[in-house]
Amino acid sequence: MRPLASLRSAPVTSSAEHSEAGHSTAERDFVLAHLDDLHADLDAWLRIPSISADPAHAPDVADSAAWLAEALRRVGFPTVEIWPTPGAPAVFAEWPSADAGAPVALVYGHHDVQPVDPLELWEHPPFEPTVVEGPDGPELHARGAIDDKGNVAFHLLGMRAHLAATGRDTPAVTVKLLIEGEEESGSPHFAALLRERADRLTCDVVVVSDTGMAAHDVPSAVVAMRGLADAEITLRGPAVDLHSGSFGGAVPNPLHAMAQLLAALHDEQGRVTLPGFYDKVRPLSDRERELMARVPFDEQEWLDGPAASRVATGEEGFSTLERLGARPTAEVNGMWGGYTGPGHKTIIPAEAHAKLTFRLVSEQRPEDVGPQLRAWVEANLPAGIEAEVHTPPGGVSPCSSDLDSPAMGALLAAIAQAWDSEPSEVLYLREGGSGPEADLVEALDAPLLFLGAGLPTDRIHSPNERVLLPMLHRGAEAAAHLWRELGQMRLG
Amino acid sequence: MRPLASLRSAPVTSSAEHSEAGHSTAERDFVLAHLDDLHADLDAWLRIPSISADPAHAPDVADSAAWLAEALRRVGFPTVEIWPTPGAPAVFAEWPSADAGAPVALVYGHHDVQPVDPLELWEHPPFEPTVVEGPDGPELHARGAIDDKGNVAFHLLGMRAHLAATGRDTPAVTVKLLIEGEEESGSPHFAALLRERADRLTCDVVVVSDTGMAAHDVPSAVVAMRGLADAEITLRGPAVDLHSGSFGGAVPNPLHAMAQLLAALHDEQGRVTLPGFYDKVRPLSDRERELMARVPFDEQEWLDGPAASRVATGEEGFSTLERLGARPTAEVNGMWGGYTGPGHKTIIPAEAHAKLTFRLVSEQRPEDVGPQLRAWVEANLPAGIEAEVHTPPGGVSPCSSDLDSPAMGALLAAIAQAWDSEPSEVLYLREGGSGPEADLVEALDAPLLFLGAGLPTDRIHSPNERVLLPMLHRGAEAAAHLWRELGQMRLG
Repeated sequence: MRPLASLRSAPVTSSAEHSEAGHSTAERDFVLAHLDDLHADLDAWLRIPSISADPAHAPDVADSAAWLAEALRRVGFPTVEIWPTPGAPAVFAEWPSADAGAPVALVYGHHDVQPVDPLELWEHPPFEPTVVEGPDGPELHARGAIDDKGNVAFHLLGMRAHLAATGRDTPAVTVKLLIEGEEESGSPHFAALLRERADRLTCDVVVVSDTGMAAHDVPSAVVAMRGLADAEITLRGPAVDLHSGSFGGAVPNPLHAMAQLLAALHDEQGRVTLPGFYDKVRPLSDRERELMARVPFDEQEWLDGPAASRVATGEEGFSTLERLGARPTAEVNGMWGGYTGPGHKTIIPAEAHAKLTFRLVSEQRPEDVGPQLRAWVEANLPAGIEAEVHTPPGGVSPCSSDLDSPAMGALLAAIAQAWDSEPSEVLYLREGGSGPEADLVEALDAPLLFLGAGLPTDRIHSPNERVLLPMLHRGAEAAAHLWRELGQMRLG
Repeated sequence: MRPLASLRSAPVTSSAEHSEAGHSTAERDFVLAHLDDLHADLDAWLRIPSISADPAHAPDVADSAAWLAEALRRVGFPTVEIWPTPGAPAVFAEWPSADAGAPVALVYGHHDVQPVDPLELWEHPPFEPTVVEGPDGPELHARGAIDDKGNVAFHLLGMRAHLAATGRDTPAVTVKLLIEGEEESGSPHFAALLRERADRLTCDVVVVSDTGMAAHDVPSAVVAMRGLADAEITLRGPAVDLHSGSFGGAVPNPLHAMAQLLAALHDEQGRVTLPGFYDKVRPLSDRERELMARVPFDEQEWLDGPAASRVATGEEGFSTLERLGARPTAEVNGMWGGYTGPGHKTIIPAEAHAKLTFRLVSEQRPEDVGPQLRAWVEANLPAGIEAEVHTPPGGVSPCSSDLDSPAMGALLAAIAQAWDSEPSEVLYLREGGSGPEADLVEALDAPLLFLGAGLPTDRIHSPNERVLLPMLHRGAEAAAHLWRELGQMRLG
């Protein structure tokens, strides 16, 4: 997700302007006539503090599921179920199309939210939704405003607009929703849920609504997410902490060894040095690079803003956007050992530790990283140091949309109509993060589309999370268009 | 301090054998006749848990000072004073020699002890002195048995032996004692005490009794201690912790930068890379290297024992003993940053931290390390990372004995007599650690001698600290010889 340098001169600041600036469609007319319903839904839902990471909020997460189930029934979904898990409940809904052979689309999202610490940095209470007039239009400030209640809520209005605009009693495609309650806690029970409920979840296409666009006036679609593998390295030197005066200079220090090891994790070109790490990384095609280069991106603005960094750096031969979305990485997330309290303690510690995560792309698989890392540590370990490499099972595979599929064509058409653009003008984004989307692809064996209304400036996971309301309005319209477009296509 | 491989076949196991094995002197005869006094003193003093690092034990540290003051009065010191400090009290005593122009010797030691954690690893309660028959003779087990109550206590008997053996009413040299109460807490008020009491502390030679010998049957003297400078490095990357998925691969990670920086702290030859670091390191002379090479040392036994390490390593071109005692070092004592809790948190942290200490030799000075380290960090910092280098004022200068001084001759003669050896056979040791001894040299401008009865196997600072009682017996005898020998010499 990236902020952009150049914002269009005519911002979408209100539903009236929205209507006037673009082409009227029945879907848009319905959405604009019923914005109050969307706003009322959000106002109610965002007041429920469904923080899945905090056990004290478990009743709120349950309330959030119950609210969503009731809202889906109100929209008209004939099947709405709350699916318990060993953790927080998910919500499942289904509205079958009456059309014979209609494709089945499954929308993925989540109804839990991030914690709100540090509370004192919020300008408005996180669970009292507040509209603030911003430079690009009205913003709704609240925890979950976009991540992910906003993205899920626009589907409620979108489905109504689809039915009203097409004059149908059932949608043009069978629409299923699976809205989980533990995404912000790492989706610990999601893969199991997908396995257990596989018979209910069969579909022809998965529509993930948990992402966003490059900017409010840059219609775009995420087409890939990176995978994830994590690891912990423990290095052991002396059997006990030693006095650095009595032993310093003559025995191996595990902190020195850890520094040497991690300094060797990247080569001079910024490439990860694990043997075989790049074997399954497909080179970027000229078309992919051209598409990424079209994404408007002001590096200095990105550095000054969300990256909060002094320089952009990374693998040689790739742009910042390519480094972020299309290339694998190795990052040290934590490192510790020895004395870390106030003052000094003159020791050579017995152990040093580091936590690492690897982001994966194209055909890389998380289960390959463990053996690669073990071989690499073995080869780079200084004399007298023993290493233990822990790579937990699991991890996340990278996933991506098939840019040439009919479903992708439907998505581009839907976005283009909602954003007053052309399908060929919709830009492709690559998400650097990782999520349960890969589980969906693997469990449901269906192609993946991303339709989300977030912006890089939405401060997700941070104080003052917000959503630009016109983005949700366009999102609802795009959803309505998408069901129609998908219904007109013969899928895979 | 190092353990030795080969122990002499005839261990000094009792006072009787001690007497028979060597040459009888009046000093030895007196010591052997009054061992019960030394043992009774230790039994009483070691029961006082004078842990200076624990505020709850402040009354015990005061009791310890009071006990020592009373014991010194009992021996006959005409002047005994307890000197308060903002922390724990020191004990000062003085016994002027009646001889006109007699040199003045000042004994340094400390009456506080290390904490006893982990208590469950002690075979006997740390403050219930227990005699255990060991392979080399009777051992007294207790916290402080050698560090440093044992080393101070032998001076009580030593002074009585000196007077009795020489038939004098006053010692052959004016003897002062300064026994501080905060050595195990870093001697925070010691330098100030030396300044404030400078007029009382003038002396011609300082005798430090807080060290030991190479082995119970290897008469030896410490002749140098390394200095100490400490530093903390903070590296700053992004202004806030960033999501490693959204930003990983494109912004500088301070943990990577810290690893690269610390990996460059030593070159391929194991030399510290700070510019100018070795400028004031005097090369070891052939004589010094020859003297160090004579110290019996089994590297494998040292690795298997106190060093608890798999290999010996360090600066190329130097032996392990040279690396430990005669060469400067840089050690990372602690390193931390990012997420260090259970599981994983996918962040690029805003900061990384490291604590370092440098051990210094010959003419190196702690105040030079700060500028050297700052220049080095500046020169080695990756782009986009800011560094803050904190080097607290103070530190410890290296210190050493003048091997050619008359005082050194007196010390060698005293040790040789007590250990049934020859002065030329007394080996020189270099202590890798650092202590307030450098403050003494600087404040009192007097040459330094080390007379201590510890052994590398005494487990100081660890559970089951002990002293080999015959070492204390010989220490008392050596002290008695030393006052006589020093009185026969014209100093400085």
